Amino acid sequence: MAAWSERLAGVRGVLLDISGVLYDSGAGGGTPIAGSVEAVARLKRSQLKVQFCTNESQKSRGELVAVLRRLGFDISEGEVTAPAPATCQILKERGLRPYLLIHDGVRSEFDHVDMSNPNCVVIADAGEGFSYQNMNKAFQLLMDLENPVLISLGKGRYYKETSGLMLDVGPYMKALEYACGVEAEVVGKPSPEFFNSALQAMGVEAHQHMK
Amino acid sequence: MAAWSERLAGVRGVLLDISGVLYDSGAGGGTPIAGSVEAVARLKRSQLKVQFCTNESQKSRGELVAVLRRLGFDISEGEVTAPAPATCQILKERGLRPYLLIHDGVRSEFDHVDMSNPNCVVIADAGEGFSYQNMNKAFQLLMDLENPVLISLGKGRYYKETSGLMLDVGPYMKALEYACGVEAEVVGKPSPEFFNSALQAMGVEAHQHMK
Repeated sequence: MAAWSERLAGVRGVLLDISGVLYDSGAGGGTPIAGSVEAVARLKRSQLKVQFCTNESQKSRGELVAVLRRLGFDISEGEVTAPAPATCQILKERGLRPYLLIHDGVRSEFDHVDMSNPNCVVIADAGEGFSYQNMNKAFQLLMDLENPVLISLGKGRYYKETSGLMLDVGPYMKALEYACGVEAEVVGKPSPEFFNSALQAMGVEAHQHMK
Repeated sequence: MAAWSERLAGVRGVLLDISGVLYDSGAGGGTPIAGSVEAVARLKRSQLKVQFCTNESQKSRGELVAVLRRLGFDISEGEVTAPAPATCQILKERGLRPYLLIHDGVRSEFDHVDMSNPNCVVIADAGEGFSYQNMNKAFQLLMDLENPVLISLGKGRYYKETSGLMLDVGPYMKALEYACGVEAEVVGKPSPEFFNSALQAMGVEAHQHMK
């Protein structure tokens, strides 16, 4: 315990990833990674601030927290920084009306967003939703726009499920970039703005030591 | 006619694209592009050699020729240079056994290819075949190979059907490249080897004037 404290001298807060760090998602809600439930509990008993910073975009924060609580994690919705709510904020600020190429599980995060007459495409880890038909619709829409805007919730290559490796949003983002000759705006890690919003949520600034 | 002959002085042969040049594909067999049936007939009446050089990979050459003949074109299978037969040759030479992510319409070109225990992925314009499940299977297979080989039949961004623009194989090739950290080998235009095979088919060499 002494060694641990020494190594964390000056550290004010901890950002934790979720998928692949706290648990592996998959059928039946997934499985916690050995030691992670205890590690979160121990961090929370310490003086450190904790925020969970995830690129998860198949589930709403509510659903994600419910899954994690069932697995034994002490976590609440306000402690989770995720791309979908950050994207809603951007859409609002810039008057963007999206065509959503996303997983049904995260659709509720966009309940209050105007989606009439779309003037941008928002792409997230849609899983089976990445059909040719849906991809083609996103593509056609971008090609029809004078100023095509493509927003991608993360740009991960793949992730691990209990059943094996699964394609993440990144490859599909690259596909649309190549097809339309555009560059996507990535919301989520590794964007500095996204990390900063996580720091804001726990009241720590970037110049203060972080892990 | 005089002007035409002068402009072609020294030209020995003509390579013609098919989709988007001779006809627009689509429901009901597609529609010929105005003037193209007559242009092909006129070329064939001239002293010029003619070869059709296409990246079409949704249809076998036999089917493609049947469609074009129904639209009024004078064309035979031997006059068509296409990526699928060129790929079969490469697979044979290198002892590669493919997982095919291709359109059912072109599958017959691979009838005599060994597909047991795949050690490479061949991707072509699969249309609706570009499901998440099929893409993920190609991805997992490449990730499991010590020396992953991805062969792409063309790398077009999109093509035009009578119903509108459609995503071609290129975006999906880019998706797998990004996901697996590999570079695809492209068979088809714009590969010089592919153009050369078309020239060979009509007995003309590259240093001789071409259009």
